[in-house]
Amino acid sequence: MLWATSPACTELETHVLDWLVELLGLPEAFRSEGPGGGVIQDSASSAALCALLAARDRASGWETNRTGLAGSPPLVGYTSTQAHSSLEKAAMIAGLGRDGLRLVEVDGAFAMRPDRLEAAIAADRAAGRIPCFVAATVGTTSSTAIDPVRAIGEIARREGLWLHVDAAMGGTAAICPELRHLQDGLELADSYCFNPHKWMFTNFDCDAFWVADRAALVRTLSVLPEYLRNRATESGAVIDYRDWQVPLGRRFRALKLWMVLRWYGAEGIRHHVRRHVALAREVARRVQASDRFELAAPVPLNLVCFRHRAGDAFNERLLERLNGSGDLFLTHTRLADRHTLRLAIGQTWTEARHVERAWGRIEEEAARLEAER
Amino acid sequence: MLWATSPACTELETHVLDWLVELLGLPEAFRSEGPGGGVIQDSASSAALCALLAARDRASGWETNRTGLAGSPPLVGYTSTQAHSSLEKAAMIAGLGRDGLRLVEVDGAFAMRPDRLEAAIAADRAAGRIPCFVAATVGTTSSTAIDPVRAIGEIARREGLWLHVDAAMGGTAAICPELRHLQDGLELADSYCFNPHKWMFTNFDCDAFWVADRAALVRTLSVLPEYLRNRATESGAVIDYRDWQVPLGRRFRALKLWMVLRWYGAEGIRHHVRRHVALAREVARRVQASDRFELAAPVPLNLVCFRHRAGDAFNERLLERLNGSGDLFLTHTRLADRHTLRLAIGQTWTEARHVERAWGRIEEEAARLEAER
Repeated sequence: MLWATSPACTELETHVLDWLVELLGLPEAFRSEGPGGGVIQDSASSAALCALLAARDRASGWETNRTGLAGSPPLVGYTSTQAHSSLEKAAMIAGLGRDGLRLVEVDGAFAMRPDRLEAAIAADRAAGRIPCFVAATVGTTSSTAIDPVRAIGEIARREGLWLHVDAAMGGTAAICPELRHLQDGLELADSYCFNPHKWMFTNFDCDAFWVADRAALVRTLSVLPEYLRNRATESGAVIDYRDWQVPLGRRFRALKLWMVLRWYGAEGIRHHVRRHVALAREVARRVQASDRFELAAPVPLNLVCFRHRAGDAFNERLLERLNGSGDLFLTHTRLADRHTLRLAIGQTWTEARHVERAWGRIEEEAARLEAER
Repeated sequence: MLWATSPACTELETHVLDWLVELLGLPEAFRSEGPGGGVIQDSASSAALCALLAARDRASGWETNRTGLAGSPPLVGYTSTQAHSSLEKAAMIAGLGRDGLRLVEVDGAFAMRPDRLEAAIAADRAAGRIPCFVAATVGTTSSTAIDPVRAIGEIARREGLWLHVDAAMGGTAAICPELRHLQDGLELADSYCFNPHKWMFTNFDCDAFWVADRAALVRTLSVLPEYLRNRATESGAVIDYRDWQVPLGRRFRALKLWMVLRWYGAEGIRHHVRRHVALAREVARRVQASDRFELAAPVPLNLVCFRHRAGDAFNERLLERLNGSGDLFLTHTRLADRHTLRLAIGQTWTEARHVERAWGRIEEEAARLEAER
């Protein structure tokens, strides 16, 4: 999939990702006019893998790209204990191994502790390992915890690590200026991604991924056999997105993203995001006002993590009953080693009355279970 | 993307890939009833990467999965000089490096030479490297050359290498019993893929990928955080395709493949495949009958590689003129270090009259260029 395969497919993608930089207040370095640029990946897992590969190869002066990892000192990456499992998978695929990814401790709000990151880097250097990568999360999968991107980014710059920021669901919030503070420090990132297919009303798959230095990514992922040589590529004037991702083929995903932007408009998307955040805060308020439930984590965006005070077994049964009823669907996680229920609000047609009814069913089922004990 | 996320999505995919095993005469070991199974990947590049990762980790007793590649002896893989560039990309991603993939010499028909493969393995073992993987191609990208799968498979078995067979375009031909001999020896393969999106009338993306031992693949690619734990997965009775591929999310691609099978039926697909092969053979006959052109490679399927006898510069100008005219689109390659034109016949609506006209334009433009010299 070269530029020449379908110029429109490539060029619309570049434009749409440039527009999103403006719309979401992302760093100027991510724009394609400079040394950076954006590309659509299938998912945040693939984006994280590409970032880790570029970090890995950059750390070795692109030697690993040619010679492989055997024989060189071990490379290590960092992320928090709350980061998505795709980081672990990326470390396995890239040949760092599960042990090559350090899971840094979090604070009481489930955000990465920069002091622990610094300590881990120092320990690895002392042991002869080479720190090359850190992934911060803006809105973790488990609880939408927000890692302190600026503090992590300053450490990454000082230590020469590639900083990748994963905002898979949370990233859409940046379309609202009043929520943009959550990504403070993003100009320190080497790469960033969020998923329009999660909270920006776009059909799966659509992950928007940017790098500040596209040359590093292309150097890591490019191959050029004879049957793909062509004048446009050799001129250096076009983008071959094949070299920005793992697979060589690709679909025309920019089209659906463009249509979503045209259909809703910036104000339309803001309207829904604000509505969802307000509804989530209303649920959080009810949890706090309730005697039987407690909040399990802060609610910065549209996910409410809560639990019944009666303990793990009770919460597990409650979840099973609620999901079995077909009236609503909750997911679960463990936070501070306790079983936690998760209510996410992010679909186009979710209204206050649905959330009211969901909360009513949760209260009702909890009361029933209490009575049965 | 767990089984529980959408049971229909997973189960239809398993069924459709089992049906294809029967339809294409693939080895029984690939069926999901036994230890194997099939999955839809985005492209043959991703399938090759998954195969290489499983080979890499199996060769180390799954130690690399945990500890990474640093500190262990270098692992090496093999493919032919004619294999698709995605193999080189996979070797870079998996941490073997470009140098960790040996490009084995081919014979006069551009097929891998098993004697050279054996010699390369012996040389690597003598140097303390660990051979772990070999990729054979049934229909190379450049010229649809057919590697001798049986001979390569016997070496792979003897040497303990993972054999991956890539039949990205050519694989569809196996729906015709008379063309099935091209994949002779496939029962020796650990994994196999072909692209219904190339020659089986299915929209991009759709690569069908099978493994003989799904446990090896899953062990290589699985991660299980708390928020994905669920009863269905823990029972072992369901397939979580997330663990069969690089990204964690996935689309419902089995649906379109099912619809293609229903719409055309086995006989319908055979009809088109036979038509395309016959048309390609007719072009090959005309090339051979012509004074000005020569065949550059055998034509086992639907790709004709040919060139004007006047040399590289002439062929380059001819290609440029033809493609610039908008009447037809040819691609090129280099075979035996000579510029070669490629005419591929594989679209649903391509008829004899289109091929006639294409050949007429090629003759006409060549005559014009000859006159201008």
